[in-house]
Amino acid sequence: MSAKPKFAVVLSGCGVYDGAEIHEAVLTLLAIDRQGGSYQCFAPDRDQLHVVNHLTGEATGETRNVLVEAARIARGAIKPVTAFSPEDFDALIFPGGFGAAKNLCSFAVDGPGCSVDPGVEAAVKAMAKAGKPIGALCIAPALLAKILGDGVTVTIGNDPGTAEAIEAMGAKHTVAGHGGVVVDQARKLVTSPCYMLESSIGQIADGAENTVRTLIGLLGK
Amino acid sequence: MSAKPKFAVVLSGCGVYDGAEIHEAVLTLLAIDRQGGSYQCFAPDRDQLHVVNHLTGEATGETRNVLVEAARIARGAIKPVTAFSPEDFDALIFPGGFGAAKNLCSFAVDGPGCSVDPGVEAAVKAMAKAGKPIGALCIAPALLAKILGDGVTVTIGNDPGTAEAIEAMGAKHTVAGHGGVVVDQARKLVTSPCYMLESSIGQIADGAENTVRTLIGLLGK
Repeated sequence: MSAKPKFAVVLSGCGVYDGAEIHEAVLTLLAIDRQGGSYQCFAPDRDQLHVVNHLTGEATGETRNVLVEAARIARGAIKPVTAFSPEDFDALIFPGGFGAAKNLCSFAVDGPGCSVDPGVEAAVKAMAKAGKPIGALCIAPALLAKILGDGVTVTIGNDPGTAEAIEAMGAKHTVAGHGGVVVDQARKLVTSPCYMLESSIGQIADGAENTVRTLIGLLGK
Repeated sequence: MSAKPKFAVVLSGCGVYDGAEIHEAVLTLLAIDRQGGSYQCFAPDRDQLHVVNHLTGEATGETRNVLVEAARIARGAIKPVTAFSPEDFDALIFPGGFGAAKNLCSFAVDGPGCSVDPGVEAAVKAMAKAGKPIGALCIAPALLAKILGDGVTVTIGNDPGTAEAIEAMGAKHTVAGHGGVVVDQARKLVTSPCYMLESSIGQIADGAENTVRTLIGLLGK
């Protein structure tokens, strides 16, 4: 572990319905900064599954690129996820939003049989192999369940259908509440429900802070 | 003042280069929630001046609507600024980003001779007339200078050219640093530089927290 813990943050666009959930993403960056860490954002360089008008909830027919839109949250300081190297970071974290289940993998459309973006899959597998901790918020734990499977323990809050789909991918689901984290000590995974529960923005900040704090606690163990 | 202070937050899109600065917007909402307030987001229902690719900094030629894009930050819970009623709120606040100077007014293009979105102008004038406090972050104080002019005191940090343009609109500029706020007690204006200074995200949270705290302190005075 570095003196200043280095986080890689993987974003999936910019907006809850078709990309990264913006509050979760920003509050993850804030939690890292306030707890003395540094961060680098990444995203897949590919088209979004679709573009949703966030005022009406309807798909618009536009085409937008995940990396280009995620750059809005990162103020331009973002790299393609294929440029991620596990030796450069102490921990990896995925904020949520539908983008995690639409652009990083196809869980929102295909459920347990979903496919995963190859760059994202490589990043998760490399960190797991290196014994470094990985965090995921909201629906993003579904991605860890798909990639790692094999009895990993995660939470997506308390939604029975989603929990069932998580378990169909070989993971164990544990119910958690506002700001709560579920820790898989052996696999060094930390997950928190965030907006999978009806939440205030303060509760999202709590979830992000607790996730980052728990990840830092796992460094070097 | 209500038991739970009610804030109207005016957004200008979604992304620092062509809309609302996302960190400033989210951290304003967080500051309001954590200090016991409630919020409602608003934005003008009009096309953005332009769309900027936040990875390259280049204009893309696309057309996007300010209200529709701002809805990404608000998770859909946003209204057109023409629906704003001053009697429903205790305070009004403008996060920054180039959108404040491109979509809420034309300051980024036209400087001191800029025009202002009529709905935004009406909202600011109505709150000022009602003696209710108004906050603005980053470049958004330029908007208050243009609309209110007449010796109001604001800060946009320490950039001499921008400060000069602010003063050309009839305002007084006061230099401020990271997290600092400048208060015009008589006019109940609270401004903070945020990303007008090279900043960490934690410093932006400080600026938003201090602005919201100061606005709450002005309520009912």
